[in-house]
Amino acid sequence: MAMTGVLRPGHMQLRVLDLEEGINHYKNVLGLVETGRDAQGRVYFKAWDERDHNSLILRQADSAGMDFFAFKVADKATLEKLDADLKAYGVATERIPAGELLETGERVRFMIPSGHAIELYAEKTDVGNGMQYVNPDPWTPDAERGIAPVRLDHALLYGPDIEKVQKLFVDVLGFYLVERVLMEDGKTDLAIWLSCSHKAHDIALVRHPEPGKLHHVSFLLESWEKVLRAADIMSMNKVSIDIGPTRHGVTRGTTIYAFDPSGNRFETFCGGYQPYPDYAPITWTWEEVGTGVFYHDRKLNERFLTVVS
Amino acid sequence: MAMTGVLRPGHMQLRVLDLEEGINHYKNVLGLVETGRDAQGRVYFKAWDERDHNSLILRQADSAGMDFFAFKVADKATLEKLDADLKAYGVATERIPAGELLETGERVRFMIPSGHAIELYAEKTDVGNGMQYVNPDPWTPDAERGIAPVRLDHALLYGPDIEKVQKLFVDVLGFYLVERVLMEDGKTDLAIWLSCSHKAHDIALVRHPEPGKLHHVSFLLESWEKVLRAADIMSMNKVSIDIGPTRHGVTRGTTIYAFDPSGNRFETFCGGYQPYPDYAPITWTWEEVGTGVFYHDRKLNERFLTVVS
Amino acid sequence: MAMTGVLRPGHMQLRVLDLEEGINHYKNVLGLVETGRDAQGRVYFKAWDERDHNSLILRQADSAGMDFFAFKVADKATLEKLDADLKAYGVATERIPAGELLETGERVRFMIPSGHAIELYAEKTDVGNGMQYVNPDPWTPDAERGIAPVRLDHALLYGPDIEKVQKLFVDVLGFYLVERVLMEDGKTDLAIWLSCSHKAHDIALVRHPEPGKLHHVSFLLESWEKVLRAADIMSMNKVSIDIGPTRHGVTRGTTIYAFDPSGNRFETFCGGYQPYPDYAPITWTWEEVGTGVFYHDRKLNERFLTVVS
Amino acid sequence: MAMTGVLRPGHMQLRVLDLEEGINHYKNVLGLVETGRDAQGRVYFKAWDERDHNSLILRQADSAGMDFFAFKVADKATLEKLDADLKAYGVATERIPAGELLETGERVRFMIPSGHAIELYAEKTDVGNGMQYVNPDPWTPDAERGIAPVRLDHALLYGPDIEKVQKLFVDVLGFYLVERVLMEDGKTDLAIWLSCSHKAHDIALVRHPEPGKLHHVSFLLESWEKVLRAADIMSMNKVSIDIGPTRHGVTRGTTIYAFDPSGNRFETFCGGYQPYPDYAPITWTWEEVGTGVFYHDRKLNERFLTVVS
Repeated sequence: MAMTGVLRPGHMQLRVLDLEEGINHYKNVLGLVETGRDAQGRVYFKAWDERDHNSLILRQADSAGMDFFAFKVADKATLEKLDADLKAYGVATERIPAGELLETGERVRFMIPSGHAIELYAEKTDVGNGMQYVNPDPWTPDAERGIAPVRLDHALLYGPDIEKVQKLFVDVLGFYLVERVLMEDGKTDLAIWLSCSHKAHDIALVRHPEPGKLHHVSFLLESWEKVLRAADIMSMNKVSIDIGPTRHGVTRGTTIYAFDPSGNRFETFCGGYQPYPDYAPITWTWEEVGTGVFYHDRKLNERFLTVVS
Repeated sequence: MAMTGVLRPGHMQLRVLDLEEGINHYKNVLGLVETGRDAQGRVYFKAWDERDHNSLILRQADSAGMDFFAFKVADKATLEKLDADLKAYGVATERIPAGELLETGERVRFMIPSGHAIELYAEKTDVGNGMQYVNPDPWTPDAERGIAPVRLDHALLYGPDIEKVQKLFVDVLGFYLVERVLMEDGKTDLAIWLSCSHKAHDIALVRHPEPGKLHHVSFLLESWEKVLRAADIMSMNKVSIDIGPTRHGVTRGTTIYAFDPSGNRFETFCGGYQPYPDYAPITWTWEEVGTGVFYHDRKLNERFLTVVS
Repeated sequence: MAMTGVLRPGHMQLRVLDLEEGINHYKNVLGLVETGRDAQGRVYFKAWDERDHNSLILRQADSAGMDFFAFKVADKATLEKLDADLKAYGVATERIPAGELLETGERVRFMIPSGHAIELYAEKTDVGNGMQYVNPDPWTPDAERGIAPVRLDHALLYGPDIEKVQKLFVDVLGFYLVERVLMEDGKTDLAIWLSCSHKAHDIALVRHPEPGKLHHVSFLLESWEKVLRAADIMSMNKVSIDIGPTRHGVTRGTTIYAFDPSGNRFETFCGGYQPYPDYAPITWTWEEVGTGVFYHDRKLNERFLTVVS
Repeated sequence: MAMTGVLRPGHMQLRVLDLEEGINHYKNVLGLVETGRDAQGRVYFKAWDERDHNSLILRQADSAGMDFFAFKVADKATLEKLDADLKAYGVATERIPAGELLETGERVRFMIPSGHAIELYAEKTDVGNGMQYVNPDPWTPDAERGIAPVRLDHALLYGPDIEKVQKLFVDVLGFYLVERVLMEDGKTDLAIWLSCSHKAHDIALVRHPEPGKLHHVSFLLESWEKVLRAADIMSMNKVSIDIGPTRHGVTRGTTIYAFDPSGNRFETFCGGYQPYPDYAPITWTWEEVGTGVFYHDRKLNERFLTVVS
């Protein structure tokens, strides 16, 4: 109990149009640590302060976007139980054998109503965060190589039927609703932020006619000063910045949205308040959606609602 | 599931020698929000960004120290289950009726081997954080009144038999060990940091011959710049600072330790990494205990090990 | 010697369309301290950490914009010498008697080729910064009332003949060129940043066909975290934000541009490197003017070149 | 005029007991850039954002301490004038030929009543700050190598007759008094802070019976977050920290004092308000000297008054 079931986002497999460009971006600009390459040619990364072997996997493909987004669960018994619960709920699941992803145990994969492949897994090799587990320093040189986020934080996905996704994540996977944005009708959700922890969000969704789209994958920074540093590094490296540095009204986090060379949007995110499951959700009305998303500009840019990968 | 069982530290009742001095300190200097007074003369406070009615209760008494430290649990069913689990484990529990603390439901109280009274409860009235739950601003004027922490964060307790406390918190209450400091023998724990969440600690204990002592109650700040501001406000108000601003090796958090007018130590804490239950615990050896506790001074001050309330 | 001649920007008189709106904006949102009102109905303000009686004077008028921008000089002898030097240089000067502005000594006023009225003065009453000059605290409650800049920092003026303005400021008033942006021809200056100190700029000019226009008046913040706080306060108060928080390439400072209720642009600025008169000026080419002005967006917004008051 | 005469601290020659240890400390821990070695075996450094060839010169010797502390003046004519002014004031001056220090022009050296060798010079080769002077980035990788201060900021010297030093610096060199600490008699200065600019201090002195001693040489950091980073790097490298991170009451700056391997105290300093020559000086009384020096501890540590090199 306490932290049980689904623990946290664990990995995302992302498609890039040019692998070398993608590697350069995620390793040298974003500053992730490369941890391996597999026989399929996929390249594995982790953020410097993550301990598990990988959190981002790049695959070269003809179109950008996300292949799957996975959550680590507490242990193998939990994995079995959640698989059974999903099936009982009517969700078809698939088993991906251990080792299909490097240093990663068996995965349970399923499609959610928004058209995204979600995975659960219980095991990924602890390769350490570069600091020993006895008398560690507070940070390492990797914490200053590139933008250097501390972890994969969350993803925002675009697709239809997000109320069904919410029900699945809440009823089966134990998430809770933290915030939501209403559509013009004042009752339908345009967007939802869900947490399985006391993070402001572990996954978020925006209602969108086309299924299976990725709005952004987000990486955590430790301070607003590191957000400035991230924006500087993006400019030094000619990264296309969508918006930021700024603050979200939703979650109160600070943020930069930018694009990788293949057009996948990524976020460098910081802060956000820490909700708990007993918290009443926060609602943003249609009139204030601009303020909810970009607290300083107080209006959406066209790209936010239309550009996805 | 996900966040289940014990959610977070919920309230601490603290004894002060002079109530008016205590109120002035916690309201005007620390900047908590006063939320009520009861028939016994106790005074209730919450941090500005907490939503539940109270997290700190002051009681005038002849000696300083802590009466009890409580955790909020997920719901009433969880409270019943944990009470049963505690009894099954051999811990005597007591029920404190709803309303004995203002706006607080029934509490389950029990003594832990270190000699501290711990409570569990499922209900406390949501009085809001001063921002509406529809289209909220990111902060309010209360966020800048006094030191203005966002929440009660954790407590560090001193007493004997901390290995028994650890076993109880891990086996019955679902906590996990995040970090520990070893004694000179290289095997006995001098201190342990336990989490029921992905906070670096929700409770910590130091081995100490005298039972039931409070080392400090800790309040969370949002940035290192707010830690500086807190130290400034302490000096402006002649608060006795124990140490800081500095960094802990343990948890990596930044910190100031200071004393309230009655001699209770409190901490304004910021940051710290976010562990999960699958993380291997970090160990600090006896030789490096100074670095572990005060990362910059790299030695304990005498007060750390001896002054408790 | 060392700091001699012209010391710093001292005051600006600004026209607002509605005095009460203007007072509310500069007092309650920007957080300046109101220090007086005169018989003409003008309202005087200073930043909390300024010691002289006023730095911003609001005058109600039918059009927004700047009446005059003034520099404090070292002493009365300096004022006399600079007046003589200006006349010798061929600049007509006018004397405004002491007391015409509250608590301000005699002023020497002259028009510069860009069509702006500039003033020099040697005396303004020291009213203190709210902290005593014996054993002061590092800041006061006024440092957290509204955005609360520490001082009037500089102004950016739009008008023709900026090369003549540069010559006058350098040859007569002792300023030096810190940075410049070139026009498409690769040799004419589009914009110049001039300093009389080791600030990155005390005054800046952009070449513009219409004379006497104000691009923005700038106020100094102490940290990037205070820039975020400023943006939050602007949004809480529905202030129209032009751009930011972001960084300038020119000066490296961090910034928000926003508009007062009358349409005068103001800046909350932080940082910037500290040049000295022996520094070679930095040049931005036409191709990189976007990066020079807004380092993260890397392009000018239309408003930057067209909206002035 | 405006910035004339003495511009800023330019270089200090420091004695170290072991040259290799000293080089390692100033290059790899403090993060200065090594710019040359001369025939005498002296090693030259500059801070990453300084443009002139050197600001710190290490010389191996049998005792730690400072050989001389130099100020850059506006130009050669200024150097001649100040030399003449010093002589007219009764100060014996010596000329050190150009080239005696690498890439440095002729120096005028003289002893001040506190027993320190002070130098003036007008020329030092501009080697750049690692960023081009056309379309520069805001910072370079050197800005994150080691502690990486942006510049040599000031020095605090210990010796007798500081009132005579003050008179010389004010009357001949154009400095002004920014702050002072009084002795127990309520009238004699224990310490003085002098500025030739709008920095809170370019040089400071503490009354001390032994002449010619160095309390600390100070290097400027850009933010309080970089002060934390500096303290972390010191601990990672086992640098002996004297005190900090903390705030000074005097100047309001934030600070860490630490020792190089030879026992020379150095400071990593940030912030401080910006005074001008028209500012009334701030006075700290004997009773509040602790608060003035260490604003949070509010008492001097014994080392502050006794340990010098």
